[in-house]
Amino acid sequence: MPPLAGEDTPHRYTLGFPAKTKPMTYCVAIKLNAGLVFLSDSRTNAGLDQISTFRKMIVYEKPDDRFMVLLSAGNLSISQSVREILQIERLKDHPEDEGTTIWNATSMFDAARVLGSAIRKVQERDGAALKSAGVDFNVSLIFGGQIQGEGMRLFQVYSAGNFIEATPETPYFQVGESKYGKPVLDRVITPTTPLDEAAKCALVSMDSTLKSNLSVGLPLDMVVYEANTFQTDRVVCIDENNPYFKMLHNSWGQKLREVFDSIEDPAWDGGQTEVPLLVPSMRSLPLKKISTPEEKLI
Amino acid sequence: MPPLAGEDTPHRYTLGFPAKTKPMTYCVAIKLNAGLVFLSDSRTNAGLDQISTFRKMIVYEKPDDRFMVLLSAGNLSISQSVREILQIERLKDHPEDEGTTIWNATSMFDAARVLGSAIRKVQERDGAALKSAGVDFNVSLIFGGQIQGEGMRLFQVYSAGNFIEATPETPYFQVGESKYGKPVLDRVITPTTPLDEAAKCALVSMDSTLKSNLSVGLPLDMVVYEANTFQTDRVVCIDENNPYFKMLHNSWGQKLREVFDSIEDPAWDGGQTEVPLLVPSMRSLPLKKISTPEEKLI
Repeated sequence: MPPLAGEDTPHRYTLGFPAKTKPMTYCVAIKLNAGLVFLSDSRTNAGLDQISTFRKMIVYEKPDDRFMVLLSAGNLSISQSVREILQIERLKDHPEDEGTTIWNATSMFDAARVLGSAIRKVQERDGAALKSAGVDFNVSLIFGGQIQGEGMRLFQVYSAGNFIEATPETPYFQVGESKYGKPVLDRVITPTTPLDEAAKCALVSMDSTLKSNLSVGLPLDMVVYEANTFQTDRVVCIDENNPYFKMLHNSWGQKLREVFDSIEDPAWDGGQTEVPLLVPSMRSLPLKKISTPEEKLI
Repeated sequence: MPPLAGEDTPHRYTLGFPAKTKPMTYCVAIKLNAGLVFLSDSRTNAGLDQISTFRKMIVYEKPDDRFMVLLSAGNLSISQSVREILQIERLKDHPEDEGTTIWNATSMFDAARVLGSAIRKVQERDGAALKSAGVDFNVSLIFGGQIQGEGMRLFQVYSAGNFIEATPETPYFQVGESKYGKPVLDRVITPTTPLDEAAKCALVSMDSTLKSNLSVGLPLDMVVYEANTFQTDRVVCIDENNPYFKMLHNSWGQKLREVFDSIEDPAWDGGQTEVPLLVPSMRSLPLKKISTPEEKLI
């Protein structure tokens, strides 16, 4: 399938074979007792030969009233349309309602419903034409923030407009290429993690992803929000010259290698070690070796 | 789609949505100047509710003549059939040939061709029926070793029977769930890495994968082969009680956390730091905040 205009899904070829569509871009958001952390990359591609920069984060801020951030992955034409419609979307439970918007919603749950409704509008408008062009209606969003009168909330919103909410057990969401950056989040993040430590963790997670997936690229947008402030000035765009990110990238790589070297190699020869490798398994027999064509495998 | 008998492809459901078929199992093989390292897990599943143990490694050893190892991922019914047929497969370039087998091939390249031919036999036999049941002909193999008269060679073999060979620039192959375990291989492995250090690296790579993907599970089979020996006794089955693997798992997790803690947090408040985070990007403007419904996004 050739790349399609406006689609940021790569059509990857593995070394020997064309592969199925793969994840692209990377966004992560974390909900802590102390606040929220949002981080996104800015790479969009329609194949390896067509790479551009589009920022995936948008901040909605009405000081003293509401603070919300939207992160997006998936088809860029869909996510841009969703953002445009979200600005004016009115969700009416009854025809005579004035309608709920992201600007008058009294809870983040209702604001997330407005976002779901905006996605469904785009689906109604473009879904059939995309389908007939062989393009999935593919968009993944993270939407979080705080509205005066309730606590912070964080949602992952799917392309059908349904959504799930972060909890203390699962305090973060990722969209796009999530695998490379997930282990460090699982090791570090709990609801009591301090804000700046969580920001560092998000950046390590992004750094691992940047190293391994060409569909993720600089610059990064990061926003850190402190609970109950309804505004933030911790907003930064991080490019390849950012001193902190450069330090983090270099230190992490070098220290990982030092950790690896500090662990002893396995000893096969029965040498002196507290932790032998070559011990029998409790339940499994040693692997059988096949040495003639006649031998049975099992 | 319900799980299908003999298929070790999970049909994963994400938190909110059914997802496409995902990688399962994990095998890795590394070619060094000093020898070869092979490592495989043993989990096979047809959905989360149907998990079994099948070992993915098979060793062919004819001392002083040839040493070969085959690792497999993908549909278990296909990989078991391929292994069975590989034992007796004769590849004939001319009808009157005696035929090349893995036991008389004079090069690993020819042995890999025999393996490709065995895959094609299974495809001919089962491909149409699998397709009509909606099952992809999905098998991924790693095949490596040494035959008297040439150096060691390592191949990744695809489900069409074609294959690629490892080189000094790319001295390892992975099949199955490759992402979690790839970063450490990229950081550590070069052709001059010592054998036991490479074995340690393969185990760290496996440990990261086990932690993150339920479709990968213990016990592990590991084989280390020293160049030009045409046999090995470094064969081990590693279960949850293996002293070395337990030490490696605990040390890696604990030391990663220490590395994370040793890197300074980002400083937003302009405090004293050599590496400030909040510096302007050279090319990108700070992210715009949207504060009214009327505001334009771009």
